[in-house]
Amino acid sequence: MDDGTTTTRLARRRFLQRAGIVGAALPVAGGLIISSCYNDPTGGPIRSTPTIETLQPTPVPGAATAAPAGTVSAADQIDIGHKQGIQDFLANQKTPLTKGKGNQELAPVLDNGVKVWNLTVDEVDWETVPGKVEKARGFNNMIPGPILRATEGDRVRINVKNNLTASTSVHWHGVRVPNNMDGVGYLTQDPIKPGGSFTYEFTLRNSGSNMYHSHHDSSDQVNRGLLGAFIIAPKDPATYPQYDKEYVLIMNDSLLGFTLNGKGFPATEALTAKKGQRILIRWMNEGMMYHPFHLHGLTMEVFARDGYPINPPYKCDTIDVPPGNRFDCIVTADEVGLWAFHCHVLSHAENTTGFFGLTTVLAVTE
Amino acid sequence: MDDGTTTTRLARRRFLQRAGIVGAALPVAGGLIISSCYNDPTGGPIRSTPTIETLQPTPVPGAATAAPAGTVSAADQIDIGHKQGIQDFLANQKTPLTKGKGNQELAPVLDNGVKVWNLTVDEVDWETVPGKVEKARGFNNMIPGPILRATEGDRVRINVKNNLTASTSVHWHGVRVPNNMDGVGYLTQDPIKPGGSFTYEFTLRNSGSNMYHSHHDSSDQVNRGLLGAFIIAPKDPATYPQYDKEYVLIMNDSLLGFTLNGKGFPATEALTAKKGQRILIRWMNEGMMYHPFHLHGLTMEVFARDGYPINPPYKCDTIDVPPGNRFDCIVTADEVGLWAFHCHVLSHAENTTGFFGLTTVLAVTE
Amino acid sequence: MDDGTTTTRLARRRFLQRAGIVGAALPVAGGLIISSCYNDPTGGPIRSTPTIETLQPTPVPGAATAAPAGTVSAADQIDIGHKQGIQDFLANQKTPLTKGKGNQELAPVLDNGVKVWNLTVDEVDWETVPGKVEKARGFNNMIPGPILRATEGDRVRINVKNNLTASTSVHWHGVRVPNNMDGVGYLTQDPIKPGGSFTYEFTLRNSGSNMYHSHHDSSDQVNRGLLGAFIIAPKDPATYPQYDKEYVLIMNDSLLGFTLNGKGFPATEALTAKKGQRILIRWMNEGMMYHPFHLHGLTMEVFARDGYPINPPYKCDTIDVPPGNRFDCIVTADEVGLWAFHCHVLSHAENTTGFFGLTTVLAVTE
Repeated sequence: MDDGTTTTRLARRRFLQRAGIVGAALPVAGGLIISSCYNDPTGGPIRSTPTIETLQPTPVPGAATAAPAGTVSAADQIDIGHKQGIQDFLANQKTPLTKGKGNQELAPVLDNGVKVWNLTVDEVDWETVPGKVEKARGFNNMIPGPILRATEGDRVRINVKNNLTASTSVHWHGVRVPNNMDGVGYLTQDPIKPGGSFTYEFTLRNSGSNMYHSHHDSSDQVNRGLLGAFIIAPKDPATYPQYDKEYVLIMNDSLLGFTLNGKGFPATEALTAKKGQRILIRWMNEGMMYHPFHLHGLTMEVFARDGYPINPPYKCDTIDVPPGNRFDCIVTADEVGLWAFHCHVLSHAENTTGFFGLTTVLAVTE
Repeated sequence: MDDGTTTTRLARRRFLQRAGIVGAALPVAGGLIISSCYNDPTGGPIRSTPTIETLQPTPVPGAATAAPAGTVSAADQIDIGHKQGIQDFLANQKTPLTKGKGNQELAPVLDNGVKVWNLTVDEVDWETVPGKVEKARGFNNMIPGPILRATEGDRVRINVKNNLTASTSVHWHGVRVPNNMDGVGYLTQDPIKPGGSFTYEFTLRNSGSNMYHSHHDSSDQVNRGLLGAFIIAPKDPATYPQYDKEYVLIMNDSLLGFTLNGKGFPATEALTAKKGQRILIRWMNEGMMYHPFHLHGLTMEVFARDGYPINPPYKCDTIDVPPGNRFDCIVTADEVGLWAFHCHVLSHAENTTGFFGLTTVLAVTE
Repeated sequence: MDDGTTTTRLARRRFLQRAGIVGAALPVAGGLIISSCYNDPTGGPIRSTPTIETLQPTPVPGAATAAPAGTVSAADQIDIGHKQGIQDFLANQKTPLTKGKGNQELAPVLDNGVKVWNLTVDEVDWETVPGKVEKARGFNNMIPGPILRATEGDRVRINVKNNLTASTSVHWHGVRVPNNMDGVGYLTQDPIKPGGSFTYEFTLRNSGSNMYHSHHDSSDQVNRGLLGAFIIAPKDPATYPQYDKEYVLIMNDSLLGFTLNGKGFPATEALTAKKGQRILIRWMNEGMMYHPFHLHGLTMEVFARDGYPINPPYKCDTIDVPPGNRFDCIVTADEVGLWAFHCHVLSHAENTTGFFGLTTVLAVTE
């Protein structure tokens, strides 16, 4: 698990040096010089609101060079790590700091009206944070696996090929299927042996932000990455709220560390919006723990649980999605800025070396 | 705590051998031979849906005999444990694999219109999973204690006799009582000393799926089993939804391992339903942890929290009942099959040796 | 963390002796003599309901004197600790057993229509339970920091002076602010260096039971006490329920132990009400864990989450507030007595030495 310790932080720094993002030759001065510029007693804005486009990563003194012992105070050391983390995160939005991207859309192939997807179950080396590569498992070599999308009433077929050295099976979590398509090893099917295949086929009876994941040795396999989103639109789109942009956010928390869509901060992806847009977030918790996510400055309106409507929707700034649940919410991006967005179990998001794990930003621009 | 380790598994196997359920003389072949029969690319059903009545436990190679080292792959070893667990669970539905059954109904005796129950508080050896016997404590020698049922407006009396070597007291969790009947040691009464007795008597002012449990040294005593259901029907039955069948499911999670009604998988009881029936589930969490229970293939409609109506009810496939809360829900059994039903904190339900702990099945038959 | 061990208990006892509350010269007999007086088979009340005013702490045999080894049974030892804890708690309501009181109201100063508060960020020695003093951090030397109150539409200004040896920043959790007032180190401002100051100023756009806390190295700083309530009344008071009395209850759970408003039982403050009063409780979880609080004998009606209305309100006897969330509820004090009120994760509230941590009482008197 990535606990954001010094070791990890150093590994990231070495990665950044190799990648040329942080050079050993950077000047030691200059990092913290804007510290005092906010101390305006009027409290008014004293520089334009930073955005992902305008806020440049700034070199941090002592970060890329070994400062002589004793020259940096304990307080400054904490600050340096925190600043570096934010800078790495902003840099990550331009050029990903890690290899691999999950949650990619996978368009189905049509076969006589049936929507067909081919999924492989793969051993994969997965980089969760810069420099930290895990022995993981993913559908189609990515974590989370590809997003599958269909519509209520569709006939769908998913061909699963097991490339693991272990058996597996796939459960369509939240999808109402015939029992023998439910994917539970030895209860509804025999597991798919290494090298084997299995075809799941069923008609979609219910809509919702659903999931798919391994259901064999699942406390290991799901934790290692065998999970993905299966999004089923309602037959009548008028029953679902309108939105301008969509994000699927899948939390996980054990064997690969604290991850959002397979990555820990600073490798997490920022959410972006133009002012006034309505952002749909589909929350999914595939982990073992609770992660009450807190959105700074804006409000979430939660309108669906496990694909079923919440009547009336409720508003909050902190949303808690228990393991196995999914919630749909709308954020109206009515205030410009970089809004921190993180698990409020603070030990899942920050330690003395800076933010890590379940932290991202919702960036709202004009 | 039962962590489903090899030791426990072996203890269970020895128990099964003693019980004649799994014999050492069983043939080694035959266990995994139906592995490929699901690999039909059409995805249609290729055998009739298994039911608790039709799916026979199948001997597993290497399970009951010591296979020579190296002859079973790591993948197969995981599969063998998983298969054995499912078979044990199915066998348990016909002949219980463990001694002792909690949650038994205890009819009151009427005394001048007062409903009277006699409860003893007992040291008990309690078998949570086959072969694993715990130094536990139970009301009337069972875990959970007997189900007490009454109706709003009833006068009730509960005579409690303490057979422990420790003091105790009983709290009527969720029941509105006079303060001196509330059962909190040294706050509302002195605890009941070893060998002592105490009589609780009050009129039921509120209905609901309530509980009773020790409230003295309770983090130990409740964990060891001093808990039970106290179900109070509303005076006007029309205010409560109709249902065909009822289950009370009480979760616990520490000193006796992860248990549902005092038993861990495979000793957990399956829920059964005929197609079309409405199944009432009364959820109660007497543990220290959160257990978001996920129901495969069907939907839960949650309509009461702590005995108070939820308006409107909400639907979900994963229900989270925090410690101390109770939720009532209806499952409409509209699809036939063996539906897995387990805590989605996967480490409470499955590990590499198979399912354990907070796992059961809802079996729907025609 | 305070785990309520013998060490802590003994430290408390020494403190009580020093304070003259429990003297070494107290008679050894007399402590448990009322044990049997409840054992009336009619179950009717056999003494008047105890209240905080009428129930006197009673000396406990063996508690204040070193009993010869072997003279007190294990059962009695548990009872002695439990009784002492209740007595200490009741004594604490008359004369606080610990130094320091958080959550004190801080009236703003008006400056041209702007409500102005001055907050200092301080290193503080904080006594969480009698005799246990922690190296903590607090706003204005208290934990929780002072309660800030204003009304929707107000212009507010908070001058923050950092007296720590570490940098800090302040986030207005739940309050809708301009981005550069949001208080996230290096994302929306540079942290406030040791000895430095920062002024936050904004107009209140939303009402609710909000919070303020450090947002720099926050998993450490918030845990050590840098947190407080920021209560914003709605512009139209008619949109908020009426109540007779108000409590703000802030939970925390790691570096300072399990605390409610900065104190662990028996140093927690009792809630008091006259029969028939409507008590408003503003729940805030600033910890890392879940704490489903159970109220004995009475009912909570929950009507707001994060400052937004819950429609319709729901009733419960156990309320779960995830970290970062706030809930508002009304308790109608319609039954007289000392009602236990504690986290139902029992290991956060009681062990063999008695109650500790997240335990208090709601005392309803005629």
